[in-house]
Amino acid sequence: MPELLDLCPPDEAWRIFREHFDPQVAAERLPVREALGRVLAEDLSAPHDLPTFPRCAMDGYAVRAADTYGASPGLPAYLDVVGEVLMGEAPTLEIGLGQCALVHTGCMLPSGADAVVMVEVTQPVDERSIEVLKPVAEGENVIQVGEDVRRGDAVLPAGHRLRPQDLGGLLALGITAVSVARRPRVAILSQGDELVEPEQEPRPGQVRDINSATLAALVEQAGGIPLRRGIVGDDLEALRQAAEAALTQADVLVMSAGSSVSARDMTAQVINGLGQPGVLVHGVSVRPGKPTILAVCDGKPVFGLPGNPVSAVNAFRLFVTPAIHLLQGGQPSPPRAVPARLARNVASATGRQDHVPVRLEERDGETWAVPIFGKSNLIYTLIRADGELIVPLDSGGMAEGEMVTVFLY
Amino acid sequence: MPELLDLCPPDEAWRIFREHFDPQVAAERLPVREALGRVLAEDLSAPHDLPTFPRCAMDGYAVRAADTYGASPGLPAYLDVVGEVLMGEAPTLEIGLGQCALVHTGCMLPSGADAVVMVEVTQPVDERSIEVLKPVAEGENVIQVGEDVRRGDAVLPAGHRLRPQDLGGLLALGITAVSVARRPRVAILSQGDELVEPEQEPRPGQVRDINSATLAALVEQAGGIPLRRGIVGDDLEALRQAAEAALTQADVLVMSAGSSVSARDMTAQVINGLGQPGVLVHGVSVRPGKPTILAVCDGKPVFGLPGNPVSAVNAFRLFVTPAIHLLQGGQPSPPRAVPARLARNVASATGRQDHVPVRLEERDGETWAVPIFGKSNLIYTLIRADGELIVPLDSGGMAEGEMVTVFLY
Repeated sequence: MPELLDLCPPDEAWRIFREHFDPQVAAERLPVREALGRVLAEDLSAPHDLPTFPRCAMDGYAVRAADTYGASPGLPAYLDVVGEVLMGEAPTLEIGLGQCALVHTGCMLPSGADAVVMVEVTQPVDERSIEVLKPVAEGENVIQVGEDVRRGDAVLPAGHRLRPQDLGGLLALGITAVSVARRPRVAILSQGDELVEPEQEPRPGQVRDINSATLAALVEQAGGIPLRRGIVGDDLEALRQAAEAALTQADVLVMSAGSSVSARDMTAQVINGLGQPGVLVHGVSVRPGKPTILAVCDGKPVFGLPGNPVSAVNAFRLFVTPAIHLLQGGQPSPPRAVPARLARNVASATGRQDHVPVRLEERDGETWAVPIFGKSNLIYTLIRADGELIVPLDSGGMAEGEMVTVFLY
Repeated sequence: MPELLDLCPPDEAWRIFREHFDPQVAAERLPVREALGRVLAEDLSAPHDLPTFPRCAMDGYAVRAADTYGASPGLPAYLDVVGEVLMGEAPTLEIGLGQCALVHTGCMLPSGADAVVMVEVTQPVDERSIEVLKPVAEGENVIQVGEDVRRGDAVLPAGHRLRPQDLGGLLALGITAVSVARRPRVAILSQGDELVEPEQEPRPGQVRDINSATLAALVEQAGGIPLRRGIVGDDLEALRQAAEAALTQADVLVMSAGSSVSARDMTAQVINGLGQPGVLVHGVSVRPGKPTILAVCDGKPVFGLPGNPVSAVNAFRLFVTPAIHLLQGGQPSPPRAVPARLARNVASATGRQDHVPVRLEERDGETWAVPIFGKSNLIYTLIRADGELIVPLDSGGMAEGEMVTVFLY
C-alpha cells in the first residue's frame, strides 16, 4: 500500500481551495479601546470635522496677520494684548485691529484672529503690549477646522486591521465602538495512537502530543480563537465523532493526522464524511508538508495536516493562516523578512517548493543565512532557526553566497 | 518664556537614559501553553533525549541493513515478516537474521533492527515474507535516540521570545511550565486642561483625549500591561499626586504632557519630584517628538511625551517601547520593513532625525513610498500612512526616485 498522492503545487492547491471556499465574515461590536489588532467589518467615515474649532499650533499670540506685514526687528509691529485664551475654554474675547491675545499650543483661536505669532519672534513692551519682530501669513500656526479630517471623509475601510494610531483617530471623532470581524474559532484535533498529553510521562513507543499546542499558538497569531479538542486514537469511528463534534462548534477544523499512511487515509475518509464537497486536495508538492489535505465541508474549511510537527507547522502557515485571515475579511500583515547571504548550498528537487530553516549570523557586518541540518521531522530544526528561506517550485536549489530572503518566524 | 530646549540627538538621549536605568527583570511561572510571545527568564536545557527511543521515519519494514546489501529488482533480498509494530507500543518482537517487521511512521524500531526499508521498494511474496528491491544503509529511515535533542543540551536561552514551535519543543521534552518575564506594568497619564474622555462630547475649546488609548495600545504591542490613569488638568499639585500614585503601582510611568510650554514645564517639575536622578534628557532632536522627557526616578523609567498625539506615538516608539523590552530581558522583534522608491523629495533639517509617514503604492510592479502631506500634529497623517521612513540626523533630505526603507506601522 504505497502512498500514491497526486501532488498539487501549493498555488494550485490554494486556488482549488478558494474556488470552493466562500468566506463569510461574522461581525461583532467592540469598544474601540479593546479593538487593537482586530479587523474592521464596516467602512467608517467622519461624523464631524476634526478639529471642530481652529486650534493654535504654537505658544504665542493670536493676531490678525495683516497687522504683522512688514514687521522686522528694526521695525517691529506693536500690538495690544487684550487677554489670554485658556486651554479648554471657548474664548469670549475678540481680536480687533492692532490687537492680540496670549495663546497656548492646542487652545482655540479667538475670533477676529487669523494667525498665531510664535512667542520666540515677539518681545514684551509692557504688561499690555508686545512687539512682533517677523510677519506671519494668514493661517500660519493655526490648524483649521477640518484640516485633520473633514466631516463625511472616509477614515478607515472594512478589512483594515486596527493599529494603535487608528484607535486614537477613531476616538478623536467620538467613535468609541466599532464593528469588527469576530475572531474565527479554529478547532484542533490531534490524531494518533502513539500520542499522550504533554503532562503525561510517555511509555516506550509513545510520544507527547505537541501539535495541539503549536497549532493553537499559530491560530492565535493569525487572529483566531483556538479550540483544543485533544487527542483521538487511530480509530475511524472515534475520529469521526470527534471531528463532527469539533466542527459543529468551530468555523474551521484542523486535524493533525496520524503519522502513518493508513492513519492519514483514515483522516481523509473522515473529512469526506463531514460535508460537501469534502477533500479537494490530498498531497501538495511542498517540503515539509507533502501529505496535506485541503477540504471544504458544507462551507467550512477543514485541514488534514501531517502528523510530523515540522510539516504541520509549515502546512499551517501556507494554508490555514490565510484561511483564518479570509474569515476576518482582512489582509495578513506582510511577513517579517530580511535579506541575507546564503552560507551553504541548498539542494532541492525541481517541482517541489522547499522551506529550509536557517539561522541568521552576523559576519563582518553582513547577515548570513545558515541552513539548519537535520531531518525535516525534527522539531528542534525549527527551534534552532530564526526563520526560513523558500526554494521555489521551479528551482533546483540555491548556491552558497547567493542573496536570499529569510522569512522570520 | 520661549522654550529653550538643549536638544539631544536620539542615540545620545538613549545612551544617557541607559546609563541611569538598570532594568530588573521580574519573573513569573506560567504554563507553556499560555506563554506564547513571552520572554524566557531562565535558560532551559533538555531533561532527556528526544526521541527517547529509536523511531521509524517511514512506513515499511524494520530490517537488519546487512540483510539488504546487494539487493536489486533482479536479485531481491527475501525476508521473513515476523510481526507488526503497533503505534504507541513497545514491540516485544526481536528482528533476527533474515527477518523483518511491518512498521509505521513514528513507531518504535524493534530491537535487532537497525534500518527501515520503505514500503515502496518492497514486494509481498506471501503473508509471511517480502522481497526487498533496494539495499538500505544502517540507520536509514530511523530517527536515533537524541537525534532531535540530547539530554542536557541547551534548548532555549533566557531572553528568548517564545514562538509557536518553541512551545511544541518544550512540551515534547515534558517541560510544561516555564519562568518568563512578568509583563511590565506601564501607567499612562494624560495631562491637559483641554482634554475630555473620548466618550464625552467636547465643548468648544475642548478635545478628546486620544493619547491614553493610543499609548495603551503601544504598551500592549511592546508586551506590557497598560494601566490607564485617566486625565489630569494642568494643575501642579493634582499632577504630582496623580503621578506619584501611578508610579507606585507601575514599573514605568508615561505622562503625555499638556500641549503648551508651561504645561510641559510642569510635567518636568513633577517628574523631578518623583525620585532620583529625575529628568535626564529634556528635548530630543527628532521630529515629531522634540519636547520629549527621559527620566529615571528611583530606578523606574518615567517618560514625559509631547501632548501632540503624533509626536507622542513617535517618541513612544523611539524610547518607551525599547524600555519595555529591556524590562522583559529580551530583544524586540525586528521591525517589519519594506524597500520602496520615494515618490517625492523629502526635505529635512540637518541635525534632526525626521520620521515621515508614507503610503505605499504599487506602480508597474514596483513599490513606491508616497509621503503624506499635512502638519506633523494631525493624527490622520499616521492613519493614512502604511509606515514611515526615517531621515537620519546628518541628512538634509531624500530625493525623489531614491530607494528607501519603509518601516511598517
